[in-house]
Amino acid sequence: MSSSDKDRIWTAGLLIIGDEILSGRTQDKNIAQVARWLQVQGIRLAEVRVVPDVQEKIVKAFNEVRAENDYMFTTGGIGPTHDDITVDAIAAALGVDVVIHPQARAILERYYADKGGINEGRLRMARVPDGAELIPNRMSGAPGIRLGNIFLMAGVPHITAGMLDSLTGELEGGAPLISETVGGFIPESEVAALLAEVEQAHEKCQIGSYPFFRDGKVGSNFVIRSTDADELQSCMNALCEGLGENGWDFTPGGI
Amino acid sequence: MSSSDKDRIWTAGLLIIGDEILSGRTQDKNIAQVARWLQVQGIRLAEVRVVPDVQEKIVKAFNEVRAENDYMFTTGGIGPTHDDITVDAIAAALGVDVVIHPQARAILERYYADKGGINEGRLRMARVPDGAELIPNRMSGAPGIRLGNIFLMAGVPHITAGMLDSLTGELEGGAPLISETVGGFIPESEVAALLAEVEQAHEKCQIGSYPFFRDGKVGSNFVIRSTDADELQSCMNALCEGLGENGWDFTPGGI
Repeated sequence: MSSSDKDRIWTAGLLIIGDEILSGRTQDKNIAQVARWLQVQGIRLAEVRVVPDVQEKIVKAFNEVRAENDYMFTTGGIGPTHDDITVDAIAAALGVDVVIHPQARAILERYYADKGGINEGRLRMARVPDGAELIPNRMSGAPGIRLGNIFLMAGVPHITAGMLDSLTGELEGGAPLISETVGGFIPESEVAALLAEVEQAHEKCQIGSYPFFRDGKVGSNFVIRSTDADELQSCMNALCEGLGENGWDFTPGGI
Repeated sequence: MSSSDKDRIWTAGLLIIGDEILSGRTQDKNIAQVARWLQVQGIRLAEVRVVPDVQEKIVKAFNEVRAENDYMFTTGGIGPTHDDITVDAIAAALGVDVVIHPQARAILERYYADKGGINEGRLRMARVPDGAELIPNRMSGAPGIRLGNIFLMAGVPHITAGMLDSLTGELEGGAPLISETVGGFIPESEVAALLAEVEQAHEKCQIGSYPFFRDGKVGSNFVIRSTDADELQSCMNALCEGLGENGWDFTPGGI
């Protein structure tokens, strides 16, 4: 593996499809879980878009985000009802037909055998863009859909989680982004200069500062991220040293 | 007010700025709270994008989403540290200078008077794109920023909430989107045809179907949304009647 391969950053885009997120009815949980899963695969989540259940909006966002990333994920809109239009929208975006996937149909027929059998709505969940493979769904029958570097997943978070789990280790990625955290009842505005200085001295690290209010006191967690374990440790040491020199109590691991 | 004014749909875009969301470290809570607040103002959240702390990514997403909406909101990146680059990015997007806002400086000097006084990091929070007004922040001193139909808000959710609160009633909107919910231990795949049929018969209504798994059983909540109260009620009645005719137990209000 050449050095440039080793340093290559793999990225993914995520499209969250659903009126329920944009209306505020449903608190999204998929951004965080997809992000964390991707990090373990050595892939960075580079952009997220949330769009309504409107085909032209889905197509436009999908094509734009996909063009800029190695992998493209969607969540939502692959169920049995009239507002589930992800398959049609992605097929349109890719310029391919929608077909019934025989294996998906067999899975659904088996799953619903003792639940009233297959019907028109349930058969919708066997529809895929032509050329697709299936992503297993251990939770509720209806599979996710894969087309090369494109992954169409369920919107219900624990079903999404199962689909991600079945993809673990399947995707090529780079060095995982690793992190160290140090926190304390330290107002970030007191140490802004220190943070900037330490980050600047460690080119391969980014430092994020995340303030909080707890027990009536302000505090912050400082998160250092890097793909290089040695640089990460060196940056963490420098930051802790700096905080100590400035008289702050801090807790490695964060508070 | 003409009929076309009354029926006008006002829309907003939201840009969530921050590596902590894209890394999965922080579970976003601002999409849902901004969405719900906008609904009450009669404004529809039309698109959300999440971007990293990288100026060119912020500028591009901001300009694209802003061009398609009546209002534009951002959260995150207006604090005192080096990774807080929202003000610079938005000023660049708008082609204006960054200036110190005298009133913001006065607010910060007062707020930090008994907390060690102003310093370089804290003064960063008085920087605004030229021409901006301030959005009050009752929680932690540093104000949000308004430029006409653009609103730059904090990323910490309870501070964001305070800023939204101070904007309540300030923005022109249309008829608020209202909703009715009916739910039950009803598999959505059993009633997909009914949902489609009822929606089709009520042009001004959208029906969303949100499945869940609880107590080992599958169920769904069906949410009808409309800006027209009479149509909404008529659609709700038709859906409940249809569910009853098909032998389902249902609970108005959802379960």
